Amino acid sequence: MTRVAICAPSRPIDAEDIEQVLELASRHAPGFELHFHPQVRAEHGHFAGEDEVRLAALLECANDPSFDAVWFARGGYGACRIADAALAGMGPGADGKTWLGYSDAGYLLGGLYRERIGRPVHGPMPVDIRREGGEDAILRALSFLKGDESGLEPGLDDRPTVAFNLITLAMLCGTSLMPGLAGHVVIVEEVAEHFYAIDRLFFHVTAHLGGIAGLRLGRISDVPENDRPFGADAGEIARYWCARHAIPFLGSAEIGHDADNRIVPFGSRGDST
Amino acid sequence: MTRVAICAPSRPIDAEDIEQVLELASRHAPGFELHFHPQVRAEHGHFAGEDEVRLAALLECANDPSFDAVWFARGGYGACRIADAALAGMGPGADGKTWLGYSDAGYLLGGLYRERIGRPVHGPMPVDIRREGGEDAILRALSFLKGDESGLEPGLDDRPTVAFNLITLAMLCGTSLMPGLAGHVVIVEEVAEHFYAIDRLFFHVTAHLGGIAGLRLGRISDVPENDRPFGADAGEIARYWCARHAIPFLGSAEIGHDADNRIVPFGSRGDST
Repeated sequence: MTRVAICAPSRPIDAEDIEQVLELASRHAPGFELHFHPQVRAEHGHFAGEDEVRLAALLECANDPSFDAVWFARGGYGACRIADAALAGMGPGADGKTWLGYSDAGYLLGGLYRERIGRPVHGPMPVDIRREGGEDAILRALSFLKGDESGLEPGLDDRPTVAFNLITLAMLCGTSLMPGLAGHVVIVEEVAEHFYAIDRLFFHVTAHLGGIAGLRLGRISDVPENDRPFGADAGEIARYWCARHAIPFLGSAEIGHDADNRIVPFGSRGDST
Repeated sequence: MTRVAICAPSRPIDAEDIEQVLELASRHAPGFELHFHPQVRAEHGHFAGEDEVRLAALLECANDPSFDAVWFARGGYGACRIADAALAGMGPGADGKTWLGYSDAGYLLGGLYRERIGRPVHGPMPVDIRREGGEDAILRALSFLKGDESGLEPGLDDRPTVAFNLITLAMLCGTSLMPGLAGHVVIVEEVAEHFYAIDRLFFHVTAHLGGIAGLRLGRISDVPENDRPFGADAGEIARYWCARHAIPFLGSAEIGHDADNRIVPFGSRGDST
């Protein structure tokens, strides 16, 4: 039996999404106990409860040694407000756990990787059940937690790798949550940002990524139309800024804010299996 | 006679705006020669010409010793792409010049301040002529260039001060353009960003502002409506993140993306007059 605790460090998740995930798992993913912490339904302004509420739920899930994994229910925004305190509050029960999520959950994945607590993994979240093809995303995540590697991002190699939402990584740079990434392949993805904002984020991020093994570009999706075309696509933008900082550009990657979001365990293959 | 060179390191300006600024200056600001570099009308995708075109125009203006000031025509996005090369290309003609602009021009103001080239000043730009009350903004900027201090931000004191658009400052952090700001009062303003994005930017910026004298909050305007209220206003957000990093929060400031945008010379009063 694989026991998974689910909490929401950012925004809350809908009751209907929870039901669908539980129903899907009961039908197609035997051998799982999925424990949605009640906090995933809490609300406080933008957040799934006040900072203290989200922090307490995360620490309950993290420090309970009976759980094998902590699955972040949804992104949005808010994990960065509680991440430092969460790391400081983690005890022996947190060691060895898998932490699974993406988007705003990247603040936690980054901090956990920096502190070498368990195994942070960039991959689908329960909220993805809403997407077209979302059932596949959920089952990909659950299968991975059982040791199935078929959902891994297909370009992973022997180099240590991390994956982040672009703006999340940009905001991490220079903070107490930013892991050292020397020698790493860094994969980024983004959603719903203008191309000029993508360019601006690459200006910032590449200035902080000296010494990485290279950068791969996940999907840049739902780019809003601007009042004039930017004049370069996402690949050209990534190549330009990588070249300015002598970072090898390693091509595209199969991650993004979509149901096809493939799984990227942080670190090297040896750490992750 | 005060000779002002105007170029556009980011987006182009309209012909009508140029005419209105020239007409206004001829009526109400005697003693000025305003030289709009033809590049301000260039177009290349998002930008006022390709990087090389914008860079060349900026360096022509900067290195011509007959100009007293370089006035940035408009923000948008693009200055960060040419700022390093611009600083590297500046010669003796750039020393002693006043550099005036805000918003995306902040990348240049930051880099110039870091390199101690002339006097960077956060204040109105020619494109502000479009705003309601825009004539006042333009005349405030021109009067300042003549030594009139009545347009200065009213809360400036003896401590060295800088002012930035919030996202511009966030992107500057940790880059080759970021000036050392220990002991400075840092003023920030923002326009058209969701409150969750403001909070996220404060998470990042305050992590980089250790040792500043304090932070003042300019106007946070045109905040888009989100699908749910964030739960805190801009002042509460600023106070929260300042407190987390032991940065004194020094209250509000009279800058912003509007016609009332007051003038903030970088550095201390002694440097700026």
